[in-house]
Amino acid sequence: MDNFTYCAPTRYIFGRDTEKETGKMMAATGCRKVLVVSGGGSARRSGLLDRVFATLDEAGIEYLELTGVKPNPTDDRVYEGIGIVRSNGIDGLLAVGGGSVIDTAKAIAGGACYEGDFWDFWAGKAVMEKALPIGVVLTIPAAGSEGSGNSVITKIEGMRKISLRTDFALRPKFAILNPELTFSLPPEQTAAGIADMMAHIMERYFSPTSDVETTDRVCEGVLMAIIAEAPKVMADPEDYQARANIMWAGTLAHNGVCGCGRREDWTSHGLEHELSALYGVTHGAGLAVVFPAWMTFMASHKPEKIAQLGRRVFGIEDADDKGAALKAVDALRGFFRSIGLPLTLGELGVEDPDLETLSRKFHENKGTPFGPYYPLQPVDTMAVYRLMR
Amino acid sequence: MDNFTYCAPTRYIFGRDTEKETGKMMAATGCRKVLVVSGGGSARRSGLLDRVFATLDEAGIEYLELTGVKPNPTDDRVYEGIGIVRSNGIDGLLAVGGGSVIDTAKAIAGGACYEGDFWDFWAGKAVMEKALPIGVVLTIPAAGSEGSGNSVITKIEGMRKISLRTDFALRPKFAILNPELTFSLPPEQTAAGIADMMAHIMERYFSPTSDVETTDRVCEGVLMAIIAEAPKVMADPEDYQARANIMWAGTLAHNGVCGCGRREDWTSHGLEHELSALYGVTHGAGLAVVFPAWMTFMASHKPEKIAQLGRRVFGIEDADDKGAALKAVDALRGFFRSIGLPLTLGELGVEDPDLETLSRKFHENKGTPFGPYYPLQPVDTMAVYRLMR
Repeated sequence: MDNFTYCAPTRYIFGRDTEKETGKMMAATGCRKVLVVSGGGSARRSGLLDRVFATLDEAGIEYLELTGVKPNPTDDRVYEGIGIVRSNGIDGLLAVGGGSVIDTAKAIAGGACYEGDFWDFWAGKAVMEKALPIGVVLTIPAAGSEGSGNSVITKIEGMRKISLRTDFALRPKFAILNPELTFSLPPEQTAAGIADMMAHIMERYFSPTSDVETTDRVCEGVLMAIIAEAPKVMADPEDYQARANIMWAGTLAHNGVCGCGRREDWTSHGLEHELSALYGVTHGAGLAVVFPAWMTFMASHKPEKIAQLGRRVFGIEDADDKGAALKAVDALRGFFRSIGLPLTLGELGVEDPDLETLSRKFHENKGTPFGPYYPLQPVDTMAVYRLMR
Repeated sequence: MDNFTYCAPTRYIFGRDTEKETGKMMAATGCRKVLVVSGGGSARRSGLLDRVFATLDEAGIEYLELTGVKPNPTDDRVYEGIGIVRSNGIDGLLAVGGGSVIDTAKAIAGGACYEGDFWDFWAGKAVMEKALPIGVVLTIPAAGSEGSGNSVITKIEGMRKISLRTDFALRPKFAILNPELTFSLPPEQTAAGIADMMAHIMERYFSPTSDVETTDRVCEGVLMAIIAEAPKVMADPEDYQARANIMWAGTLAHNGVCGCGRREDWTSHGLEHELSALYGVTHGAGLAVVFPAWMTFMASHKPEKIAQLGRRVFGIEDADDKGAALKAVDALRGFFRSIGLPLTLGELGVEDPDLETLSRKFHENKGTPFGPYYPLQPVDTMAVYRLMR
């Protein structure tokens, strides 16, 4: 186990009707005038935004809106948000939506406290020390941004999608998690969210650090819970209990507890980011294609941890590591298939993938070789992308 | 799953040599003059206290000491500490030790911010809203107080041992967790600590709330990690990796993540508190006697969750719930025995237990009936105590 520091101070308010607490929680953070960030309009159509605004009114909090944030959120909306914050004396952010909305709100919150270009943080030119307080009302369990200190933003110029990780500055002050708000998610979005949260755990699980039994077992446990509950939410989108378990699993998957004490990998996310950037695929669906391919490659190159996942999560009894690892891939693919996720680039809608460009851009963004669990050279990266066909 | 609020903002600094950070962390909380609370002297003999003092000196923090805090800590030391804080302009507490030391520091931290008698909080006459900042250097992984908002204090008058749970006020600001500091623990203290942390998980696991798969799986995972690592620390007290896994498991066992979304039980802790109060037994060793007895009773009265533990944690395949539950008890007893823990009141040194007094005091303190998982009437409580013989 490696030395680590862990601090996850977000206050989670979980359960039915909890969005009623939004105004009170926002006021408790000391905010008087907030920018409410939202996405494509479903929060408005469902009446959720109006209910949230009512709680802000009741708590005496003024607000302005930034709406229409899209998946794979871009820097232009962040600059727009920072402008609104600065011109209007905004002192806090409230994100009502999923990962893209939360990540945009976070970038605005950090950028507004900085005199330079907010992108400096994402480009590694500055270290974010502070941000305006951020509150969240979560509507999509997937990205885990409601409990993380991370924010993924794409710079339109060059289409560079970069994840910033802060220890502390970007952790939301509170996150309202009402499983009922996820009843209306379409099946493909529910499934992609499930793949995303599983990937957040596996990126941490497939670690080169040994002797992390406690953290391993937490990871395996949350994965098993997701695998047990996923078929229920797919069969009945209004199964409150299953939605609740999936929602809480999505938060635990990415609030850091699954990574304590070890180096994390994040190769598969990097491979997927190139797919999203080049072909605009849904992040979670892309991960369902990327992860089994990467695991298949690892079955021949470093099978131990893939085999452990197979044995402990999927109950595979094969004593040989490579054999167990390959069966783990089969089991994971079978699970993804069962909830309607794509398994190949073709099924993702990428008929003629440009493997060389994908591989080149991956190494441009990540370095060469890249991969804490097993370092990929460009030839390996090509091989992994080839396994996605 | 029940609605819940969860906020665990303690900053954990985990790993080798991390006690060097103590002064810097204490300064980061804004403290200038702290009361250092410690226990029986091993922290002084080992040189740990001197090393900690050196970091305080370096950070420019003044300090006074309260030493000699004993297991099952008592209110007299709390009053003494509050007096020192008030007479000396102390603005923070630093606990260097295990649960008793931390709980005493917490009680002083809360009591010093309150004009009335600190015991009002434990007696349920007042709600603790604030406390002085608390830092921890942990030396015994067991009580989990380093990450919890709880404090257990015994009032000498009437020997009432009461646990106060606060959502927030008593959560330490930071906890230094260096597994090397636990190398010198004697085997019986290591084993009792393991029983204590397992009990903290099981008190939450044996819940009447259904559909808590995610939290259940986290509990089962941490229990499995403890069971895997415990034989290693017993065989080699200086096995860093095993000590590290046990230490982190002890924190996760009690920082609340194992309880999210459900009603908790805490019957076994209540039954054990009476044993400690009447016969002065070690808390963890007492729990090793109490828990299997309680589970045996439940095998006949409400076996489902005991059976689930048996199947998922101990790999028991019995399809019948009562059968699986009884095998779970056997497996747990076998594990406790393997690390040298007592299994009966006789082995605890209580040759002629006064079952009636134990049962009566349990219900006096807890109410009648008591037991969220399964409500115990006095006749049931007597039966459970009888199963400990």
